[in-house]
Amino acid sequence: MVDINKSIESLNWTKEPKGLYEPIAYTLASGGKRLRPQLALIGARMFGGNEEEVLPAALALEVFHNFTLLHDDVMDRAEVRRGRPTVHVKWDDNTAILSGDQMLIEAYQLLSRVPESKLPQVLRWFNEMATGICEGQQYDMEFEHRDHVGLDDYMKMIELKTSVLLANALRTGGFIAGANEAQQEALYQFGLHIGLAFQIQDDILDVYGDPKTFGKAIVGDICCNKKTALLLTALEKADPATKAELQQWLLVHDRNEEKIAAVTALYNRLGVRSEVEKIMEKHTSIALSQLNLLPQNDAAEQLRKLAEKLANRKS
Amino acid sequence: MVDINKSIESLNWTKEPKGLYEPIAYTLASGGKRLRPQLALIGARMFGGNEEEVLPAALALEVFHNFTLLHDDVMDRAEVRRGRPTVHVKWDDNTAILSGDQMLIEAYQLLSRVPESKLPQVLRWFNEMATGICEGQQYDMEFEHRDHVGLDDYMKMIELKTSVLLANALRTGGFIAGANEAQQEALYQFGLHIGLAFQIQDDILDVYGDPKTFGKAIVGDICCNKKTALLLTALEKADPATKAELQQWLLVHDRNEEKIAAVTALYNRLGVRSEVEKIMEKHTSIALSQLNLLPQNDAAEQLRKLAEKLANRKS
Repeated sequence: MVDINKSIESLNWTKEPKGLYEPIAYTLASGGKRLRPQLALIGARMFGGNEEEVLPAALALEVFHNFTLLHDDVMDRAEVRRGRPTVHVKWDDNTAILSGDQMLIEAYQLLSRVPESKLPQVLRWFNEMATGICEGQQYDMEFEHRDHVGLDDYMKMIELKTSVLLANALRTGGFIAGANEAQQEALYQFGLHIGLAFQIQDDILDVYGDPKTFGKAIVGDICCNKKTALLLTALEKADPATKAELQQWLLVHDRNEEKIAAVTALYNRLGVRSEVEKIMEKHTSIALSQLNLLPQNDAAEQLRKLAEKLANRKS
Repeated sequence: MVDINKSIESLNWTKEPKGLYEPIAYTLASGGKRLRPQLALIGARMFGGNEEEVLPAALALEVFHNFTLLHDDVMDRAEVRRGRPTVHVKWDDNTAILSGDQMLIEAYQLLSRVPESKLPQVLRWFNEMATGICEGQQYDMEFEHRDHVGLDDYMKMIELKTSVLLANALRTGGFIAGANEAQQEALYQFGLHIGLAFQIQDDILDVYGDPKTFGKAIVGDICCNKKTALLLTALEKADPATKAELQQWLLVHDRNEEKIAAVTALYNRLGVRSEVEKIMEKHTSIALSQLNLLPQNDAAEQLRKLAEKLANRKS
């Protein structure tokens, strides 16, 4: 079986100019779950595909994902990623911009190594996915400053920013290995809905997860008024008086502990958690239903377990 | 004959989110010579190619070129481009970063429309070119702060930053239209050397051109110690005393007019202009010699005229 971390390590970043390639090596060495290339490989395994044949596309998706993190960190002024200083902190903004650009090009370079007969389709899908992710990041940035954001807007944003990449990873792996059109679509829908479920679970864990196991900063989404599934659901469900109370808290920018306690209490009063859990379960269940359209083999079992693990995760 | 400006206008940028696509439309509407897509079309015409077939690649090269300008302007903190505020000034840095990223993806989207049998090669070349340009921009940024930069380093940098794009435009156009390998290489070499000649001519015109026709700011390369072919040749040719005198002037950051006059006088004393003109003429002549390996038709004649025009341009 292909070892994704080893494959990533074996990409050569010791080239000149070092100022361009060292930040790329640094970014890719920072680990992460390697979920996207894994999904591509599972998609291929499901159809008995040759993993070596799918590997370039799998790696392209991981390099692309890390490119988005690199540039997003510049835009969000994030200083830490996976426990280490971000590239624009360790080096500077220009390095982060240019090395990020080069990572995007490297992703396409990896992609160009997929079997030639599959390349045009894989490239078109990759472009659509990449476009979706840029659009998602743009909406995410706009939402911060926009007065009204509906839950629907939010779902669309996370679909673009997170889900299309998971969906496309599965579909691309399956396609290269010979999945037919209906199966490609089922893989895509599985990835899309598992991505939505994952992101919503993330919102829930930020507020209700055990900080020790969830591993996020104590100052979470509530403190910075992040427009999450919980907050947007609360704003949509609340009667005028409760909504006013909630909006008062959104104006508070100190007293973090007090704010978290008060907003969580409001969420509890409105039954927001179970409401949002229902949405998450809906997406998990749509994802699982797609599995019925796919070969019932070990790879499908792996996807089923992944879906269940995501739905029940504590961190 | 295909109208490049009309083709660019017909690309649809009125999509949502506007915050992502409007800066792209703004950048592409700012004009410029459209030299890169023109070269791709000339390369195709030389081999009787169908212009419509080459157009997507030609547009991809123009969109890519404008992407590099957009991100370079952020990195260089340039405030004006083609007489208008740059994107990061008119909007902000985040917009410039993300819209730039999307432009790079759009370039690949256009590229994916070339005939499928030609796509793998065209994509590989495009990736190599894009990598070269990022490396060139990295060297360019590093040179600013590096003590010693040789003329060779400089030539390598401008080859990467400017020439490979012109070279690849011609080669890609010719390849899609059916040029054989030797012809592809001749087109590439023509573009490479014409690009070098063009860049060196730019350095010469900055100092010796008529500011009225050259249209550049009065405060040119000399004021900001830009490491140009002229300055690097002067530093390499000068005897110790003259070199020390030149280096004294590099420490002056006011008295612009006096500095320009003094450095220009040093250049004249060292015979730098004719030295650099010789390099330029060498590259123009290598470019022209490549034309002998290519079909002697109207397209070749156009390239010959282009080379002569570049070599004799006053602006």
